[in-house]
Amino acid sequence: SQATKLLVLPGDGIGPEVMREVVKIVRWLGDARGLSLELTDELVGGASLAAHGVPLRPEVVALAKEADAVLFGSVGDPKWNHVSFDKRPEAAILGLRQELELFANLRPAQVFAPLVDASSLKPELVAGLDIMIVRETVGGIYFGEPRGIETLADGSQRGINTEVYTTSEIERVARVAFELARLRGNHVCSVEKCNVMESGLLWKQVVTALHERDYSDVKLSHMLADNCAMQLVRNPKQFDVIVTGNLFGDLLSDLASMLTGSLGMLPSATLGPVQESGKRHALYEPIHGSAPDIAGQGIANPLAQILSFAMLLRYSLKREDDAALIEQAVSNVLSSGLRTADIMSEGMTRVGTEEMGAAVLQEM
Amino acid sequence: SQATKLLVLPGDGIGPEVMREVVKIVRWLGDARGLSLELTDELVGGASLAAHGVPLRPEVVALAKEADAVLFGSVGDPKWNHVSFDKRPEAAILGLRQELELFANLRPAQVFAPLVDASSLKPELVAGLDIMIVRETVGGIYFGEPRGIETLADGSQRGINTEVYTTSEIERVARVAFELARLRGNHVCSVEKCNVMESGLLWKQVVTALHERDYSDVKLSHMLADNCAMQLVRNPKQFDVIVTGNLFGDLLSDLASMLTGSLGMLPSATLGPVQESGKRHALYEPIHGSAPDIAGQGIANPLAQILSFAMLLRYSLKREDDAALIEQAVSNVLSSGLRTADIMSEGMTRVGTEEMGAAVLQEM
Ligand SMILES: CC(C)[C@H](C(=O)O)[C@@H](O)C(=O)O
Ligand SMILES: CC(C)[C@H](C(=O)O)[C@@H](O)C(=O)O
Repeated sequence: SQATKLLVLPGDGIGPEVMREVVKIVRWLGDARGLSLELTDELVGGASLAAHGVPLRPEVVALAKEADAVLFGSVGDPKWNHVSFDKRPEAAILGLRQELELFANLRPAQVFAPLVDASSLKPELVAGLDIMIVRETVGGIYFGEPRGIETLADGSQRGINTEVYTTSEIERVARVAFELARLRGNHVCSVEKCNVMESGLLWKQVVTALHERDYSDVKLSHMLADNCAMQLVRNPKQFDVIVTGNLFGDLLSDLASMLTGSLGMLPSATLGPVQESGKRHALYEPIHGSAPDIAGQGIANPLAQILSFAMLLRYSLKREDDAALIEQAVSNVLSSGLRTADIMSEGMTRVGTEEMGAAVLQEM
Repeated sequence: SQATKLLVLPGDGIGPEVMREVVKIVRWLGDARGLSLELTDELVGGASLAAHGVPLRPEVVALAKEADAVLFGSVGDPKWNHVSFDKRPEAAILGLRQELELFANLRPAQVFAPLVDASSLKPELVAGLDIMIVRETVGGIYFGEPRGIETLADGSQRGINTEVYTTSEIERVARVAFELARLRGNHVCSVEKCNVMESGLLWKQVVTALHERDYSDVKLSHMLADNCAMQLVRNPKQFDVIVTGNLFGDLLSDLASMLTGSLGMLPSATLGPVQESGKRHALYEPIHGSAPDIAGQGIANPLAQILSFAMLLRYSLKREDDAALIEQAVSNVLSSGLRTADIMSEGMTRVGTEEMGAAVLQEM
């Protein structure tokens, strides 16, 4: 059989340095556990802008489509703040989501026991926290038309964006949430603003109908987005799986991540539809950004990138054992007291990006 | 001169019972401090639906326009979940915002020293917290057209909402934020998603231009809405005034309120444009909802409603002394250890709505 193909897109800022630690793990898995992966490296985001004048080349999209999975770093660089919308580094991740139809972003917000004190929240509120946010990522106000800025007769301007959701867009992401819930706490909370937005009302109706039809064994609740933001702070452990649209998901998943106090630890997966061949496009990325302020200093936390690769092994390559091996190694390293700067606390041993990567490999 | 006219709209759920405590304070201010207010009571929300078949009658809108200020309770009742959009209890507050052009919602998120432990966050992160969120409330996706749910050829559906902001809508709410900042920490943080939404890009450009033109003495920063949700949890004290659109403001102001741990304590004001007469429509309401689950039990916290009235005295009636008197009384009552159920903690004395209201009056 053909080798499994991985497209590796380190991107900007700390992306390349944390990705380097993953590549070492990939090599070790090849040697020690017979996992043969063919890696292709490409530039995206600001790095691609600098080299090629665009944040995402069509060649890279083609490679992403061919690959068995995409491992993404992070994009974003204040240097490119002035460029137009479609040329910003962020257009790379938005473009990949759209071109590969990556509609379901899975964002676990998990508290690692040794890091419980890193949270802003009181430890008893977050110890053992394990939420999965399923965010729709190819629809909603991110891509809806019409959009743009128009100049009015009097010289003033008008900015417009359109939130659109269709029955099928809502159904497919809700299905992902229900399926995941069955493997976890069996509870889905669907989040919208049905009290002020028709797109939210349709969202609620479609999720409710799908639940009745195919997932009545799963507990379903509904929550307004403003209330959800509050409940995540008040009592986050009430949630199991949250399913929501693109824009609410953007805010709520970042909020949920921050509850854990350790952004540098959290991976994510974004999945496309299952194709006839059984294949499914998927992109894995840490939830943290490119952190330009600390880039190049060798102090960034590589664990979210490493755990994103573990998710890739689990979901795309069905290598559960290898995924679990990595996750256990990460857990051991934390228990042993090693910490990068972002998760440092008293009495622990501070290490840099490379040392942290090496420690995980050592544990494996 | 004519008596000052107040329109009192208790609304649903706990609205009427907490409003009752305010009315006692109004009476006392009349007797003891010569404040002559003419109160008119009207039904809104579910209460109006039950009595009149609509959540907000035109007569009530007319009274609101005539009044010097509107004191609002809360609307919302699960009984009316099935009714159509324009008939939901929430349509009352949305309708008042629009009819009176109440475009700037001022939501302080303040931690009261004796309640610092009520927060989910660690005390050192929230002690002394004092954020003012200025949320735009008559534009954006709440009111933009086109909107609705349409049925497609194949029987599936499509929900649509439109986010629209114009230069003047952005400018006027940003002005309110800059003016407020000058009286506080002199720092405005403007929040949008300019990396994915053109309406957010225009927002940022207009705020930046206005700042350069008229408010360059105020510090201005910009933040993406997802990052703002995170930063509010990570380190809320970095903020002074936050200005943002209707939808982000809905989530972020609720989030900021919840950081204080005492929703039942927080008032808000929503202001319209200054008219030629110098008059300015204004509505004051607690940020908590109608809390149907505890309505009618006499256990709701009346302090947010009382503090909303204090805001009304300060902003609409220029009775700073009376406002300060009420706020000091509330502070004394908390220091004395009285607590309603929502803010109860060990060693404190639990009281009901009436007792709490009476204690404030006693302190005054
Ligand atoms: C980079 C940006 C366009 C992106 C988004 O808003 O979706 C990011 O915030 C995310 O959550 O993945
Ligand atoms: C009641 C509802 C329509 C309203 C809103 O979404 O604006 C409320 O949540 C608020 O924040 O005042």
